[in-house]
Amino acid sequence: MDYKKVKIGLIGLGTVGCGVVKVLADFPEVEIKKIAVKNINKKRNIENLDISLLTDNPFDIVNDPEIDIVVEVIGGIEPAYDLLVAAVNNGKHIVTANKELLAKKGEPLFKLAKEKNTAILYEAAIAGGIPIIMPIKTTLAANKINEIEAILNGTTNYILTKMEKDGVSYEEVLKEAQELGYAETDPTGDVEGFDSAYKIATLATIALNKRVDINKIYREGITKISVDDMRFAKELGYKIKLVALAKTLEDGRVDVRVHPMLVHVKNCLASINGVTNSVVLEGFPVGRVMMAGPGAGEFPTASSVVGDILAIQRSIGENKLLPMMECHHHINAQQVDIKDTVNKYYISLTAVNTPGVIGALGEVFGRHNISLASVLQKGIGKENTAQIVIITENSKEDNILTAINELENNKNIVKINNYIRVLE
Amino acid sequence: MDYKKVKIGLIGLGTVGCGVVKVLADFPEVEIKKIAVKNINKKRNIENLDISLLTDNPFDIVNDPEIDIVVEVIGGIEPAYDLLVAAVNNGKHIVTANKELLAKKGEPLFKLAKEKNTAILYEAAIAGGIPIIMPIKTTLAANKINEIEAILNGTTNYILTKMEKDGVSYEEVLKEAQELGYAETDPTGDVEGFDSAYKIATLATIALNKRVDINKIYREGITKISVDDMRFAKELGYKIKLVALAKTLEDGRVDVRVHPMLVHVKNCLASINGVTNSVVLEGFPVGRVMMAGPGAGEFPTASSVVGDILAIQRSIGENKLLPMMECHHHINAQQVDIKDTVNKYYISLTAVNTPGVIGALGEVFGRHNISLASVLQKGIGKENTAQIVIITENSKEDNILTAINELENNKNIVKINNYIRVLE
Repeated sequence: MDYKKVKIGLIGLGTVGCGVVKVLADFPEVEIKKIAVKNINKKRNIENLDISLLTDNPFDIVNDPEIDIVVEVIGGIEPAYDLLVAAVNNGKHIVTANKELLAKKGEPLFKLAKEKNTAILYEAAIAGGIPIIMPIKTTLAANKINEIEAILNGTTNYILTKMEKDGVSYEEVLKEAQELGYAETDPTGDVEGFDSAYKIATLATIALNKRVDINKIYREGITKISVDDMRFAKELGYKIKLVALAKTLEDGRVDVRVHPMLVHVKNCLASINGVTNSVVLEGFPVGRVMMAGPGAGEFPTASSVVGDILAIQRSIGENKLLPMMECHHHINAQQVDIKDTVNKYYISLTAVNTPGVIGALGEVFGRHNISLASVLQKGIGKENTAQIVIITENSKEDNILTAINELENNKNIVKINNYIRVLE
Repeated sequence: MDYKKVKIGLIGLGTVGCGVVKVLADFPEVEIKKIAVKNINKKRNIENLDISLLTDNPFDIVNDPEIDIVVEVIGGIEPAYDLLVAAVNNGKHIVTANKELLAKKGEPLFKLAKEKNTAILYEAAIAGGIPIIMPIKTTLAANKINEIEAILNGTTNYILTKMEKDGVSYEEVLKEAQELGYAETDPTGDVEGFDSAYKIATLATIALNKRVDINKIYREGITKISVDDMRFAKELGYKIKLVALAKTLEDGRVDVRVHPMLVHVKNCLASINGVTNSVVLEGFPVGRVMMAGPGAGEFPTASSVVGDILAIQRSIGENKLLPMMECHHHINAQQVDIKDTVNKYYISLTAVNTPGVIGALGEVFGRHNISLASVLQKGIGKENTAQIVIITENSKEDNILTAINELENNKNIVKINNYIRVLE
């Protein structure tokens, strides 16, 4: 079959942009007409790059009447948002890998695209090379998805895997990851969970079919995970992962959050190591489905970007463009506050090593309606203190916080070292 | 958006057919106009089934001018093939879960559908509820996929998981599986690998982009796996799985086969337990991607069938129907004979317990160009015999068979118990 040839304009020629150019070399049906870059003279990691394609004015692309698809791989809100609004207003289709933009400006952008009858595809923005958005919108279209458990950030998963394997501290692994280029000089976006939160905001919106507000997503990073936490988790049969969660509760409210969790080794997310990402979906009628693969990198991301370009290219000329890929989530999710969520918890604390301490702990938790699944003394510390690790049964976060607050003021408790939610 | 309502005719009302009827109850845009069954009076597991829809003549469906989509869930070649040919000739789109039909009659059927400009979708035929065909054709369209490793049959994976966990024999677990309804009275189709072979034939055709001939797929079932094999595999860090493999070799030939393998615990397929299926794809640019989920069952299968129905329903009225989903694999794969494949092997044998036996084994294997990764004596058997387990390095199957044949005639070798290929 002879497909219509499409012309694309590429905004951004960093790692992903270079990957897109290289992969498109095998697809003569897609012509790169222009590439917008910050610095035209910068040396690029592409053989035989046609310098005449480069422009330092991205509006050359969004205003070019010959360009059918604008591919945006610069990231961030400005100038990406203004550029994409201009592109859609000019009737162009969009392929983007910009998770922050989708999370913060997805609603007005999709609304505009619907008015203008153009497509916005963004497979690369969520979980890199793993097919997830298209499957949810097509193969799984018959499903009511009610739960997502996911590892959506490769940098933090690399750090946590390495901490567990080598028994070294967060700071030490971060430094090494930065030297290897797996973590950025300012790692905040990754290690504080912003990147995962952007991704789960969009993924939850699509999968749970209600618009999730990024500002209402509880977010907690991995910087407080200690060598002890890693060791205790391992002994108890868990791995520590930065998990992005989303679920629809029975009352219709939606619980979306990003934070570290002790993941039981029987849960398939526990075996996702290194920079790999994974998404587990649960819904009816399908049941539980898992996808895993490379969540970032030049070529895996380019795989999804070019997949989206080809999807548009092969649909151009239709009356309805990619009819299943429309975004129409006008209903805003009613998001649950973290205090109202129910979880199992790992709590690590240092107590005075006297008889009756465990009894006292039991009394405090019991008074706050918290059942304990296990209480383990993990050895004697300095100055006659005892390390104690507790795993609770399902408990309301609010009650846990009150109990912890009370314990912090208890004369027998030296320190609450950490508390981490648990995923069985 | 208001979609066009479509009318479907359902051929078959067994487990999957009932699931499709139940799931479609939530999709008013799809009307079930007729359902063909063998016995109209049979009691069905569906509440409020409209008996007036039933017919015992499936040609009522394929010849009904009002029906847009024929959904075939009866399985087997006859009468399914004749029915679908008639349906396509009448301009109808097809959704099928029939892996045997696709493997044996896919080529003429897709050719006819192309002539008649109708769609044939079959997500449910491969790996049940797991999205795999649509992702390969859309999100992963930029990839050259060169390898598939998959577990595609739930019954055998259930049996092998149970054998490993409980340390019991194949016969014992099969009996239990039959009682529980996980295995059929005549289990041949599953346990001898036919079902997996049908699925990998179609999956490899799509993913490797060359038509794979089902008759040239090497196939070996799980009936010879012993309790000892399970135990030795476990001790060596492997699980035994019925693996469906497909890869493109450097010379362009294609290696497609189904047989048990010792899968190293570090390979993610090793952790696929029970009736779950999994597909691992490796390609460029994406790298390695894995999908896992329920491979069979009323609702997971219905999820994929209804996903396909909705994909067609939402595309009807387009000039080009589902342009990315066409099948055009006119190039026949040149398939490698199993004798010419290269694998690592697990070999279990019983030898006379005399000094020098391991030296003699080494000599035979060495003479046939087979390097041994490990040789382990696993205890002394009856009548002064020794159980020996060997793991080889990569070796040509032909050489392995010759060496095994020679060992069978060696006076120090009592018996070659089994040999199983190894997947690291």
